[in-house]
Amino acid sequence: MSTPVAIRPATAKDGDAIWRVLEPVIRAGETYPLPRDWSKTQALDYWRAPAHEVFVAQDGNQQDNGKIIGTYYLRANNQGGGAHVANCGYMVAAEAQGRGVARAMCEHSLSHAKARGFRAMQFNFVIATNERAVKLWQSCGFEILACLPGVFAHPRLGDADALVMFRTL
Amino acid sequence: MSTPVAIRPATAKDGDAIWRVLEPVIRAGETYPLPRDWSKTQALDYWRAPAHEVFVAQDGNQQDNGKIIGTYYLRANNQGGGAHVANCGYMVAAEAQGRGVARAMCEHSLSHAKARGFRAMQFNFVIATNERAVKLWQSCGFEILACLPGVFAHPRLGDADALVMFRTL
Repeated sequence: MSTPVAIRPATAKDGDAIWRVLEPVIRAGETYPLPRDWSKTQALDYWRAPAHEVFVAQDGNQQDNGKIIGTYYLRANNQGGGAHVANCGYMVAAEAQGRGVARAMCEHSLSHAKARGFRAMQFNFVIATNERAVKLWQSCGFEILACLPGVFAHPRLGDADALVMFRTL
Repeated sequence: MSTPVAIRPATAKDGDAIWRVLEPVIRAGETYPLPRDWSKTQALDYWRAPAHEVFVAQDGNQQDNGKIIGTYYLRANNQGGGAHVANCGYMVAAEAQGRGVARAMCEHSLSHAKARGFRAMQFNFVIATNERAVKLWQSCGFEILACLPGVFAHPRLGDADALVMFRTL
């Protein structure tokens, strides 16, 4: 079941709430190639890097006071001649998994990237064991362009493949 | 014909010589997705980023006083669970094209990456119109894992594909 989700640009005040979303994902180390021991500062410096445009997803249920349950960043995947292709990273709060938050953020990012003039979106490193994410991105129009063999050391499953996924806008 | 090439770690004093190699490549904008208008400082800050290990290739001919004719960087392609895959960028001085400098640097980088414990090397963005480079990397053991459609705005040729190339070490 999907839940009402409101997506808005992040502000400087959202740091604590964003970290609450990022921390369990980074600590688990199963879905992003990021250091599992990152501090809050390191994680937020990465997520809110100058070249990243950051959004937060708030629970639309009134009784939850708009709690932040997800966040994503949008950036150009390359500079120079590659700057017309966007890239995003998405994370959902542990308690909000399976409620359509990632899909809502992805759809928002596709629309926003197109409005900013990007002509395609590329995911560089979708870990193949994260099957729910792979299926979700496919349902959002992304195609698998490559399987990178054994490029991710999964903390529970050992060497895992990562996928390059792509769609035009 | 290949020429004797000596490859050594770059030092702080090599900045001018590295920039002499980088500048025409960056200005042309045909082989790397980097801003064509970058200043020397911007280019060197990128090439010599803290996470990059930088090498220079010197002409082995005595009469040339070991002029720097190429440079490359080596880095981890990702952090965390992706840190066992290396990535490199190589540039060769305009006057030294076709003399085996890129091949010498690539072979050096493969050996050095393996010595550092990397288990594979990945090139994320080999522009498909750069056919000499594609063939060279293939002859160095790299396979094409993906063709990213139209992701590079080539300044002369319009939208061009880029290739993801990969080999184990």
